[in-house]
Amino acid sequence: MRSIETVLSPTLFDQIECIENKTVVVIDILRATSTITTILENGAKSVIPVKEETEARQYKEKGYLVGGERGGETIDGFDFGNSPFHYKPEIVKGKDIVLTTTNGTKCIEMSEQAAEVVAGSFLNLQAVIKHLKKTKRDVVLFAAGWKNRVNLEDTLFAGAVAEAFNDANKDDASLLSIAAYKAAKDNLFATLQDSDHFQRLANKGVTKDIEYCCKVDKIDSIGVLQEGKIIAS
Amino acid sequence: MRSIETVLSPTLFDQIECIENKTVVVIDILRATSTITTILENGAKSVIPVKEETEARQYKEKGYLVGGERGGETIDGFDFGNSPFHYKPEIVKGKDIVLTTTNGTKCIEMSEQAAEVVAGSFLNLQAVIKHLKKTKRDVVLFAAGWKNRVNLEDTLFAGAVAEAFNDANKDDASLLSIAAYKAAKDNLFATLQDSDHFQRLANKGVTKDIEYCCKVDKIDSIGVLQEGKIIAS
Repeated sequence: MRSIETVLSPTLFDQIECIENKTVVVIDILRATSTITTILENGAKSVIPVKEETEARQYKEKGYLVGGERGGETIDGFDFGNSPFHYKPEIVKGKDIVLTTTNGTKCIEMSEQAAEVVAGSFLNLQAVIKHLKKTKRDVVLFAAGWKNRVNLEDTLFAGAVAEAFNDANKDDASLLSIAAYKAAKDNLFATLQDSDHFQRLANKGVTKDIEYCCKVDKIDSIGVLQEGKIIAS
Repeated sequence: MRSIETVLSPTLFDQIECIENKTVVVIDILRATSTITTILENGAKSVIPVKEETEARQYKEKGYLVGGERGGETIDGFDFGNSPFHYKPEIVKGKDIVLTTTNGTKCIEMSEQAAEVVAGSFLNLQAVIKHLKKTKRDVVLFAAGWKNRVNLEDTLFAGAVAEAFNDANKDDASLLSIAAYKAAKDNLFATLQDSDHFQRLANKGVTKDIEYCCKVDKIDSIGVLQEGKIIAS
């Protein structure tokens, strides 16, 4: 039977065994993986996730468009922040976009040994589920959290995916995520209003980003990591 | 405002700051903290939690009654395992009982710097909540998990406690636990039937232990750590 495991913080990622046979869904709902999904939907050729700001700056010097944030703030001199609204189709279409974020791109790099790495978001929930069902591999739902702390929105998304697999062998973190998602799914946005990250982002005036990132099934494609670049699949 | 934080695995415990000002509720529902609560209810003078089997054996040589398990199995030569049913009133009354378990006693030791450490279980849920409300300190709900992995039953208990504090500042792990508890509370036992630890224990024939540990509010006292011993409060 296929296994579904959920990692609730990067600190817990090394508990996963045989990662090389598994598909990892990296989850950073607010906002990295929602933004990556949007960038690809808006026609970018790829998103190049990089962990370090200095590496992103090197790309910038070579002429790439570069986006990124640290602690929720756009990095000085970059073309974009981490808001999905920054990446308009007329700007990103046909381009390779370099992105560095606090939590999400770190988790993508941590997952590089996996058989496959995909970017998950509520925006393309059903597309992610459909893709996972097609590949038949064991699945790791990797919640990026916030600075290694467990967070609500990433866990709820893990629950939304795990719930779709009736006949899988789910670990306790997946069962927990499913239970939480069941309690929250009819009103995701309201549930997230109490969360730490909502408060942080609302204080920065980006409530509309959160509303957008809570929209479900607006995008049919998913981002898949291939040779260091995330491309639409 | 009082803060409520939930630690979903011992691996995440060092994220908690200022532990010396907080009350830690150690949670190992299956079965250490349920058993500790029962031992005290059955009249023991104290429970002495020890991390290492060798330390427990030294107590045994001095004439103490000693209980413990490793990986769910009673340790050879010990008086009791980790089942609450082993600690009958006529045996434990008035005695200091030494206990070592895989996850629970380790977490008690990790919490020693806290202002106060209490043992939480569904058996005395309301007593724990009442005690926490009385002390007014910030609260850390410390789920022992299973070998550092997140588990369902300990998280659900954290949610049951956190839910009782309407006016507290709750971290995301607490909000997540509350959501999961809301989905599960009307049928705890059935919810736990899918969990990893249920399967492990059921395979050892101790389903009746699980049924017992899911009973809510059967005991009015709580175990509080004082100078290395847990005593009824």
